[in-house]
Amino acid sequence: LDAKALGEAWERQKRMTKPAGALGMLEIISAQLAGLSRQCPPPLPEPAAVAIFAGDHGVHAQGVTAWPQEVTGQMVANFLGGGAVCNAFANQVGAEVCVVDVGVASELPSTPGLLPRKVRAGTADFTAGPAMTKEEALRAIEVGIETARDLVAAGNKALLTGEMGIANTTTSAALIAVYTGADPAEVTGRGTGINDEMHARKVEVVRRALELHRPDPADPIAVLTAVGGLEHAAMVGLLLGAAALRTPVILDGVSAGAAALVARAIAPEVLAACIAGHRSAEPGHVAALTALGLRPLVDLDLRLGEGTGALLALPLVQSAARVMHEVATFDAAGVTEKA
Amino acid sequence: LDAKALGEAWERQKRMTKPAGALGMLEIISAQLAGLSRQCPPPLPEPAAVAIFAGDHGVHAQGVTAWPQEVTGQMVANFLGGGAVCNAFANQVGAEVCVVDVGVASELPSTPGLLPRKVRAGTADFTAGPAMTKEEALRAIEVGIETARDLVAAGNKALLTGEMGIANTTTSAALIAVYTGADPAEVTGRGTGINDEMHARKVEVVRRALELHRPDPADPIAVLTAVGGLEHAAMVGLLLGAAALRTPVILDGVSAGAAALVARAIAPEVLAACIAGHRSAEPGHVAALTALGLRPLVDLDLRLGEGTGALLALPLVQSAARVMHEVATFDAAGVTEKA
Repeated sequence: LDAKALGEAWERQKRMTKPAGALGMLEIISAQLAGLSRQCPPPLPEPAAVAIFAGDHGVHAQGVTAWPQEVTGQMVANFLGGGAVCNAFANQVGAEVCVVDVGVASELPSTPGLLPRKVRAGTADFTAGPAMTKEEALRAIEVGIETARDLVAAGNKALLTGEMGIANTTTSAALIAVYTGADPAEVTGRGTGINDEMHARKVEVVRRALELHRPDPADPIAVLTAVGGLEHAAMVGLLLGAAALRTPVILDGVSAGAAALVARAIAPEVLAACIAGHRSAEPGHVAALTALGLRPLVDLDLRLGEGTGALLALPLVQSAARVMHEVATFDAAGVTEKA
Repeated sequence: LDAKALGEAWERQKRMTKPAGALGMLEIISAQLAGLSRQCPPPLPEPAAVAIFAGDHGVHAQGVTAWPQEVTGQMVANFLGGGAVCNAFANQVGAEVCVVDVGVASELPSTPGLLPRKVRAGTADFTAGPAMTKEEALRAIEVGIETARDLVAAGNKALLTGEMGIANTTTSAALIAVYTGADPAEVTGRGTGINDEMHARKVEVVRRALELHRPDPADPIAVLTAVGGLEHAAMVGLLLGAAALRTPVILDGVSAGAAALVARAIAPEVLAACIAGHRSAEPGHVAALTALGLRPLVDLDLRLGEGTGALLALPLVQSAARVMHEVATFDAAGVTEKA
């Protein structure tokens, strides 16, 4: 973050016609946007686009979810048809939806709006071996970097993370356990809503994977290779790309939190571009946000993914920036300051 | 709330392409909107307007704030000039700003966008006698009812509460103490940011007022007469009017919470129309929301008033309604349901 713009933002907020500090958390966001862009007031974060990375997970074979794997591809078709919750939210807040096939198991027909960037047709079962090769992890990261670059080149001033991948909360839990040191039982949630028996199995699956691979958090590419997901790797790339372009990224839920932990291990400065859009109902997400030191903007027990939590936060981030442009100072408005 | 539309809403949410319950709190809002409107899907809550009721407070003379009283009128001019935070937020979320002078102490010049509905030039100091007469309280309530009626007649599908009144968190604290039974020390906050000495005085002012008037919560008009504010009374009217018109109202902060407690004492069914937009940093607001049984949508330590917290919540409420219109069912989208 640029210290000069950051300082200017805080100074400006004191002169604006409102009690000092009265916008709470939004004042912190305004200052972050100024520091990130090196401008005060910072550019309005619009237009904005949500990148939804879709991928499948070999660990699905271990019975960690009640949903069949083909739902990943079916939901991609639903996104492209405009029928999913992310579409409704994007319509409401005026964001573009960009869908990227980075690793769906099924073959997806070529459709307008779908970026075909399949690295492999789903990861391997990480309870039996590595989820992917190192080369695949790097290629998936590259897909994310390129997506960030293309979306910013197209004029977007804010990016939002989204993902779709049946079983991907299992992968997210494994990544979060690696980076927070928490026990799998603490960070493995119920995802789409599984019963106690399946949840116990899911915890054991994460535990077995960590015992098998013993991933070293200091080697983030190796962590992704061992227990990552293709959409997680792509989100890591999106964060790296956005931060390099000084473009804010609103993080969605638990999978984005997991990706942010990996991205920070690659380049700590990536966090300067990250805004936590929401706090999901997944316990691992809380652990991730705490480890990242990020406070979420929206906290409404959502647990859907697809970028939905990030989309709800977008107008809040835009409002924080807009205040810096449009609100009068005490002098200019002829308002008396407090004694 | 209409039971049939409410039931239809919950049924529809189960068939939509998302895991059951995955939208958390927003599913409750969607159902409330359906029950309120008697339609499923409910109408989209747009366009929307924020009604900002401005009034002054005789209790200002007791030294409960560091801001001079003339700031109320100056900020009204700022709203009308488009230079306040509420204007920036309203621009961002596409809401209309409607400013109503229900009791500003100073004479305000006639300006486009300002509704002149002054009941009296500020309340009397309620540590010395009643804040207003019963007739004035009823007239201020009527101003709110008429504002709701006019804004709905103009096509608005959602109303938001806003207020401006230097010293009005003192009034709000008194009202909340009456309706929650809490000690004044628990529900009296620092408003715009006062120091310990002034805060101690503010608590004592509330305590003295309650001892003087001993207001009976079962007689809400008498409560307003004794320790109310003109903008509080007008907000009571706005809530009553909106509920009668089956139009949702997004509540802003502590003053709206105080008004909702009074409105509920007049007509309990008013709560069916109320959505808590945010939770402010004021301790009395938490007490009010708890007593009302409302969960706030946004919780970012804002303490500004002007409708700012309600404006931030508007896109969330609109998103909740939009989902009911636009999201495909499992059958229609060809997505397999979970096992």
